Amino acid sequence: MRRRVRVMAPATVSNLNCGFDVLGLAINEPYDVVEVELTGTPSVEIVAIKGCDSLSTDPEKNVVGAVLGAMTAASGSAVGFRVIIEKGIIPGSGIGSSAASSAAAAFAANVLLDARFTLTELVRFAMEGEKLASGTAHADNVAPSLMGGITLIRSYEPLDIIQLNVPRELFCVVLHPEMEIRTSIARGLLDRMLPLETAVRQWGNVGGLVAGLYREDYDLIGRSLVDYVAEPKRSGLIPWFNELKNSAMQNGALGAGISGSGPSVFALCRGVTVAGKVLGGMKEVMKSSGVAFKVYLSPVSSNGARVL
Amino acid sequence: MRRRVRVMAPATVSNLNCGFDVLGLAINEPYDVVEVELTGTPSVEIVAIKGCDSLSTDPEKNVVGAVLGAMTAASGSAVGFRVIIEKGIIPGSGIGSSAASSAAAAFAANVLLDARFTLTELVRFAMEGEKLASGTAHADNVAPSLMGGITLIRSYEPLDIIQLNVPRELFCVVLHPEMEIRTSIARGLLDRMLPLETAVRQWGNVGGLVAGLYREDYDLIGRSLVDYVAEPKRSGLIPWFNELKNSAMQNGALGAGISGSGPSVFALCRGVTVAGKVLGGMKEVMKSSGVAFKVYLSPVSSNGARVL
Repeated sequence: MRRRVRVMAPATVSNLNCGFDVLGLAINEPYDVVEVELTGTPSVEIVAIKGCDSLSTDPEKNVVGAVLGAMTAASGSAVGFRVIIEKGIIPGSGIGSSAASSAAAAFAANVLLDARFTLTELVRFAMEGEKLASGTAHADNVAPSLMGGITLIRSYEPLDIIQLNVPRELFCVVLHPEMEIRTSIARGLLDRMLPLETAVRQWGNVGGLVAGLYREDYDLIGRSLVDYVAEPKRSGLIPWFNELKNSAMQNGALGAGISGSGPSVFALCRGVTVAGKVLGGMKEVMKSSGVAFKVYLSPVSSNGARVL
Repeated sequence: MRRRVRVMAPATVSNLNCGFDVLGLAINEPYDVVEVELTGTPSVEIVAIKGCDSLSTDPEKNVVGAVLGAMTAASGSAVGFRVIIEKGIIPGSGIGSSAASSAAAAFAANVLLDARFTLTELVRFAMEGEKLASGTAHADNVAPSLMGGITLIRSYEPLDIIQLNVPRELFCVVLHPEMEIRTSIARGLLDRMLPLETAVRQWGNVGGLVAGLYREDYDLIGRSLVDYVAEPKRSGLIPWFNELKNSAMQNGALGAGISGSGPSVFALCRGVTVAGKVLGGMKEVMKSSGVAFKVYLSPVSSNGARVL
């Protein structure tokens, strides 16, 4: 039995415009690393958090504590965990920072527990971290962070996660302006009720996007990357959103939108050449704003969480 | 240039549980036949309607008149049509009776006009029939009736119709209890506003169903055949609905629901053997009700409208 393991889990882009709360994809970078050591007492100790000053090492206040606490309870034996977290993903960036830590912790603990839990069960545990972080136990970041690729949460109850086909030439560009948007605030902006016609248009696009992914029909993917639900409400939180999106589209992106609840803005592109051009254009937009930012360019990651 | 043509267009099952207003499929039987003759005057004359006494031959009041009137106007030349309609599909049955007549008429006229319109344009014309019949220009019946297979209306504006993959073993059972439900009344029962969580569940299933069709994953297709939007409101219009659905599921159907706005109830099945068993069970339910009914069992039709 292993006593200690280091696991990485990647950043993720959730929603993908039309798929609010159900779609997400993993990218190669950035990622979090969680090192977990098995102990004999049913408690969770967070020894250190590297790369980030703003997160608490109190296991009651850290997503990793929530995830591993749930796994300790479910294990039913005298197991506990000692943890070091290495943050590669900036909290509040909208690319699944809490999800990656949660996913890495769940995956690492499962290795130490001789893989007694299924991947779907690990998603369920990692959702405890999301619940702590945002008040809602959503799975659209933790699922792709654990499993890689593009995932669909068909159903939450029971939890049913579908790994969708990943077209080979699909690249993702992410621009993270250095401002924080709390998921809970971004969720609060959404209307609780949708006109039926709006919902119909949204699920028409979900169907179109899934069909496009299987057909590897990049035009169809692009036409389906439309969001009638969150973007109209949330884009106002990101002062540069319209300019970033327009720039991405002008440079040939298939589509662009808010990553999760923002502030990161993502674009999907066909091929690395277009992706590079899109990235360049988005950088220009942000440079003229004077606000600091980070950028990432990655194919859809085929890897989810994995042992280092 | 042909002067006269006979075209058939098949019945269709729309919505498919989760895909309200966007999904539909064609079956082999029943179908309507429309015979169209080209005339030199820009008018539409409906000479006869065979197989049905309840429909008007007044072109202002018949869906075929609405479709061909629109095509006459769009043709911009001195063309008109003389029509004989042979109804194989009972009006108000919920399996696209008006859609099939509209589709057959549009397809036939296009043959006579040397195929000057695209299939998508024909869908647009056929939607004029739907508008006359139900007050709403929906396309989820006319698209599969014209094109065959399983269609997704990704978007209405612009009209974007996606032909989805059809798993080879997919069979459709339809039971039509002889009562009429007006589409306009069935639509009036629906809530105009949906809770966001309900909409999310519905589009999770749309994504799951489309993925299931491409993966030919019958279990996933079955799990996705859930309707949180129309079925809870409309099933009360069909006194035998719950019994029919339960019977279908007990006999191994992947899923079952209301076809369009009803009263027909459909079930999707894997393989003709299961479909036969499901059909038998549904017949037993209706026999004990004493109400007359018709049944149909068909693979998903690969043909849409075609010249006879």
